[in-house]
Amino acid sequence: MKVLVLFVCLSVGCLAQRPRQCRSPPLLTGSLSVSTASEKLSAYAKYTYDALGKRIRLKELGSYKNHTFYIDALLLYNQGVMYKINYKNRTCCKKPLSVDFHPLAIPQDASLLGQVILGASSGPGQGLLVNTWAGEVQMKNNGTAKYMSTVTEFGCIPVSTLFHTNKSGWVVTSFFNNVIGLEDPQQLIPPPFCEDAQLEKEDGEDPLTFFSLF
Amino acid sequence: MKVLVLFVCLSVGCLAQRPRQCRSPPLLTGSLSVSTASEKLSAYAKYTYDALGKRIRLKELGSYKNHTFYIDALLLYNQGVMYKINYKNRTCCKKPLSVDFHPLAIPQDASLLGQVILGASSGPGQGLLVNTWAGEVQMKNNGTAKYMSTVTEFGCIPVSTLFHTNKSGWVVTSFFNNVIGLEDPQQLIPPPFCEDAQLEKEDGEDPLTFFSLF
Repeated sequence: MKVLVLFVCLSVGCLAQRPRQCRSPPLLTGSLSVSTASEKLSAYAKYTYDALGKRIRLKELGSYKNHTFYIDALLLYNQGVMYKINYKNRTCCKKPLSVDFHPLAIPQDASLLGQVILGASSGPGQGLLVNTWAGEVQMKNNGTAKYMSTVTEFGCIPVSTLFHTNKSGWVVTSFFNNVIGLEDPQQLIPPPFCEDAQLEKEDGEDPLTFFSLF
Repeated sequence: MKVLVLFVCLSVGCLAQRPRQCRSPPLLTGSLSVSTASEKLSAYAKYTYDALGKRIRLKELGSYKNHTFYIDALLLYNQGVMYKINYKNRTCCKKPLSVDFHPLAIPQDASLLGQVILGASSGPGQGLLVNTWAGEVQMKNNGTAKYMSTVTEFGCIPVSTLFHTNKSGWVVTSFFNNVIGLEDPQQLIPPPFCEDAQLEKEDGEDPLTFFSLF
């Protein structure tokens, strides 16, 4: 009987240690890089992420189809609008935001690919324990999309995401220099010169489409 | 005068904190994954690395041009030979190893692309401080090769390497589950049934060529 109890306790202990699907902290500030396998898009962005207010600010420098671009965008999912901000000219472009807000999280139906240590576990500061999850999500138009997402075991901080649709091919997003919290909450409020901006129609193909990754 | 001394001290302090080209620990055991942008090669390997004896053991499972393969190889650079080991059949295939041994290190002429934290710096166990270096190396045949190499700030543990030659295109190697030291030193000694193996000629195109990455 004692052996059975011990066995059950050990089993529960082991099960409890299995990585769980998780949700990233609701407030995050950091940087990310995005690139596609087709080398069409490669970009670097600073982001401010607020899952409570469903707001994202992205200041993004990159190249899309060999043209460099800079975009400063504020995405207000609650209001369904997006601002493209130009501080230099103090102009603002207001557009409808048709995609839903997806909080940074590992979906409940994701399957665990594995747990590894990036770097080494032999000394302090030499390694990072991460879990990699994979799954499929239903897209509005593009059918199903495959993803592979790596987050830290402690804190569920995003490390990298691979995303595949037939339209985009493989898209790799790497997150770094993240801090929990908002470095500057004002980044999530439209600047004063955006008040008068009129809602414009959506244009065609736009490097912004990868925002739907969030 | 005091201000000048303070300025010099601060400058030296800052310079001292700039990441330096570094050499990885001479003994490492861990795993790695290799994939090419062209999706020709994708492989997973367990490696044992001994820079002192210039020996590498690789047990590698992957797919090359849509054919899966398993290779168990012992590379003895000091002797210029490589063993392909088949434990199941207790057979061994001895081949010349014409490439030089390159210790895992950031070359002196590499330039620092940047220092970032993978994950977050907001809590313990949430992040990993890494340095990314880039440069070019002269290849024996293929002209110059570009590389981008990320190692941990503490310990100079390899995290990932991007390598580009005109022949191979972009090759991405990710290192994980590394430990400093040899988990099993015997992995670096040819098994008994390899003693009688005769030196064979090199064959043509071989997924093993990426060993030259080391």
